Amino acid sequence: MTSHTHGRRPTLEDVARRAGVSKSTVSRVINGEPKVRAEVVEQVRQVVAELGYVPNQAARQLVTRRTGAVAVVASQPQNRLFLDPFFDCLLRGVRRELAEHGSQAVLLFLDDPDDYTGVADYLAGGHVDGAALFSLRPGDRLHEMADRLDIPVVFGGRPLLRDGDTVRAHAYVDGDNRGGARQAVQHLVALGRTRIATITGPYDQEHSAAERLAGYRDVLPGAEPELTERADYTEQGGAQAMAALLDRRPALDAVFAASDLMATGALRTLRERGRRVPHDVAVVGFDDLTEITESTDPPLTTVHQDVERMGRLMARLLFDQDARPPSVVVPTRLVRRQSA
Amino acid sequence: MTSHTHGRRPTLEDVARRAGVSKSTVSRVINGEPKVRAEVVEQVRQVVAELGYVPNQAARQLVTRRTGAVAVVASQPQNRLFLDPFFDCLLRGVRRELAEHGSQAVLLFLDDPDDYTGVADYLAGGHVDGAALFSLRPGDRLHEMADRLDIPVVFGGRPLLRDGDTVRAHAYVDGDNRGGARQAVQHLVALGRTRIATITGPYDQEHSAAERLAGYRDVLPGAEPELTERADYTEQGGAQAMAALLDRRPALDAVFAASDLMATGALRTLRERGRRVPHDVAVVGFDDLTEITESTDPPLTTVHQDVERMGRLMARLLFDQDARPPSVVVPTRLVRRQSA
Repeated sequence: MTSHTHGRRPTLEDVARRAGVSKSTVSRVINGEPKVRAEVVEQVRQVVAELGYVPNQAARQLVTRRTGAVAVVASQPQNRLFLDPFFDCLLRGVRRELAEHGSQAVLLFLDDPDDYTGVADYLAGGHVDGAALFSLRPGDRLHEMADRLDIPVVFGGRPLLRDGDTVRAHAYVDGDNRGGARQAVQHLVALGRTRIATITGPYDQEHSAAERLAGYRDVLPGAEPELTERADYTEQGGAQAMAALLDRRPALDAVFAASDLMATGALRTLRERGRRVPHDVAVVGFDDLTEITESTDPPLTTVHQDVERMGRLMARLLFDQDARPPSVVVPTRLVRRQSA
Repeated sequence: MTSHTHGRRPTLEDVARRAGVSKSTVSRVINGEPKVRAEVVEQVRQVVAELGYVPNQAARQLVTRRTGAVAVVASQPQNRLFLDPFFDCLLRGVRRELAEHGSQAVLLFLDDPDDYTGVADYLAGGHVDGAALFSLRPGDRLHEMADRLDIPVVFGGRPLLRDGDTVRAHAYVDGDNRGGARQAVQHLVALGRTRIATITGPYDQEHSAAERLAGYRDVLPGAEPELTERADYTEQGGAQAMAALLDRRPALDAVFAASDLMATGALRTLRERGRRVPHDVAVVGFDDLTEITESTDPPLTTVHQDVERMGRLMARLLFDQDARPPSVVVPTRLVRRQSA
């Protein structure tokens, strides 16, 4: 909004041109990434201040809706995406909110690294008014893509750098993964359980899984490592992890599974091994996806996330000009049924 | 390609303008739909001849790929689409072929009638180079949408008018539903089965279901109506239909289920009722989707469709300038396993 950019809001490109560096260098400086020389960092910061560049994509709002469409992009292969009840529900929320703004979703796919160029070009090509990006992994290439866009961007899931810092340039909507996990484990403690195991998601790769494990450790800082088993958010993985836990610690009396699908697998293994739920082993899941929790035996105690609302909030952040703060962490709550 | 359109290939719009009628009237005349006055039909036909209008969208090829994207649109709600293994596989085929042409898919959604306007506007807005449309129902509004587009269009599934005639203006790729059903039923006859029932899809709504029922009737023109039970292509529907058939005709000795999912449900009911498969009742499915057929007990004899190839062919028809004929019916073949 200064004379340097002739009244336009300055873009990342303006900063790069004036500082005489590449756009990705500007993006690295803005996001606080390492491996940029100190004098370059200083130079870029000076230009950012001079131009009044606001490194928040969400600040450039969908005021003029030229295409009537918002891109939805997830860094998961197509078939995993289609079978993910969480994504199905989140996308429904995004689409419902978009519809209320007279806009619609177009879904693009990122099955393998070759797809990135095409998707990035499409997003930059004026075919969409904004982008809702679902990032699962710290250091995801989606962040880099987002930095280069001149349209509003919102992330589903907190966007993280490889070193675990939050990317500050973009708005995001996330669930309270850590707080929800704490509620689940506190509930098991309150029931008098003393040997509480956890089946985790891929915590070395996905932020939500790392946060849910952190919540378990918040409540049980002294838990034995043998009570933690890593799985992959699938039912089959949950079943195998439960078997491994029972082999190692036959006397365990509770398990917190970091997703409903994994909890379903755990229930199956417990049944096969003749353990009664909740009498012998209490089980708590995470997500509260009705497709799953309606059909478990016994009904699953789990941590509820309002996934559709999270999707709606993502779309709203693209449209809301005065969103402060630009990011939202949606609370979770424990839903007590019979499994714990 | 005449002087009337200054060297451009004439469009539906050119015909409409010159004939002094609306584009939808031209489209109705071209598609042979009823309810157009005879003199209007004559007038439009004259202009079509004068301008040399070719009413085949596929003839206008993706020579210049401006956007690098092709829209994929299906007239099914999002959650049904995501859980449909047939669509998952077909879309994979479309995307793989597009990738080989340096293009990608963008998926748009049609959950309810309100979505049509937005999707139609997006397709007409220059944001995609072509469109792959999945039509399930005769008289589907997707056909009307396709008629108004100036980009190449290909249908998955034969596009039908409400009166059952094939829409001639657009290329399509379809499986040989009727021929496949005939193979299935002929196999049961060859096994010596004499009381062969069928569980159908929603044949009053979906073309594939009507064709599969027609194949059954081709082989068994005198079959009792009590041996036919209509379901909805779901596992639950297949289970209920099997129960209804057994209640009405306890002595039946074979069943042709018009989809693998329905066959899975039928196997469950047969097991619950104590019928041995194939000894008491032989079962044949349709589709040969590995996700399903790998896990049935006993392994399912079924009609194989090469669904990924169908998806690839759809994309190829958008790119292939000399595709003659512009539509393809992909053959099916029986895969014998243990259930029949």
